Amino acid sequence: MEATIKPETKSEAFFISMTLSAWNAVNERVTKLLNELAEEQWMTETAPGRSRGIYLLGHLVAVSDRLITLFGLGERLYPQLDHPFLTSPDKTVQEIPTFTELKKYWTTINDTLTTKFNTMTPEDWFARHTAVSEEVFAKEPHRNKLNVLINRTNHTNYHLGQLIYLKQK
Amino acid sequence: MEATIKPETKSEAFFISMTLSAWNAVNERVTKLLNELAEEQWMTETAPGRSRGIYLLGHLVAVSDRLITLFGLGERLYPQLDHPFLTSPDKTVQEIPTFTELKKYWTTINDTLTTKFNTMTPEDWFARHTAVSEEVFAKEPHRNKLNVLINRTNHTNYHLGQLIYLKQK
Repeated sequence: MEATIKPETKSEAFFISMTLSAWNAVNERVTKLLNELAEEQWMTETAPGRSRGIYLLGHLVAVSDRLITLFGLGERLYPQLDHPFLTSPDKTVQEIPTFTELKKYWTTINDTLTTKFNTMTPEDWFARHTAVSEEVFAKEPHRNKLNVLINRTNHTNYHLGQLIYLKQK
Repeated sequence: MEATIKPETKSEAFFISMTLSAWNAVNERVTKLLNELAEEQWMTETAPGRSRGIYLLGHLVAVSDRLITLFGLGERLYPQLDHPFLTSPDKTVQEIPTFTELKKYWTTINDTLTTKFNTMTPEDWFARHTAVSEEVFAKEPHRNKLNVLINRTNHTNYHLGQLIYLKQK
């Protein structure tokens, strides 16, 4: 039996590429800031009494890392980041990775996701993620992987708006 | 001649609804903050030396207002906002609208865009916006209206991350 190409595949692939472009663009802006600002700046608060740069960096790595299991793409790389960066607010967990370590994790998680995303077909992107049941998905088909990536892109932009405040005026 | 429905219309309409959901969601979060925080809080800086809430509000209204002409949907409602909120940094223009006025503009521009977006077909969304020529668009088909809305949604999230700092700790 030959592989069949569904007529809608072309426009689906196009929409996926638009979504991936927005995802890559915001990650590149975070990477640019990582290369631009010194470690000392990342250790400061984004605003008085608010999260530090290093906390938001760890938070973004943890959220991206969770996409691996959410999309059924294998085992997470950094589950140990959930405690300090997802379930606890900043400055409440004593032992956190160093800035250098987190910076390395940021590169690794993005490269890993890119590699994994490149193996996904349009059909995969429009399929349900692992946090939604088949029953619910049948009624709410927008709860697919592509929609999660749209939301994560918006989430990263939200924190990028805060991280930009680490820059000196 | 009868209207024909292209086979890809269904999936295109689905992407469009996902994109519009993300757009509506972030606008609703800004609206929530508008209803939650007092005018005095909106008059303060989001962080020391950074833009005030009122400036970011005017900025978001102006950026949304520009979608009207960018999408070829008619005349802009508030072109007078470009000078104080797009081409000038905060605190450099003396005369700006009041908070009450801007809050009303915010509701009006969102309602206006929703009405106009509801008249758009999937074909319209995947067509070029007015800032890209036909020649360039032939080579860069992602420069369509839907992509602009994806970017604007990310832009609003970026500033929402800053506006949230108006909330007292």
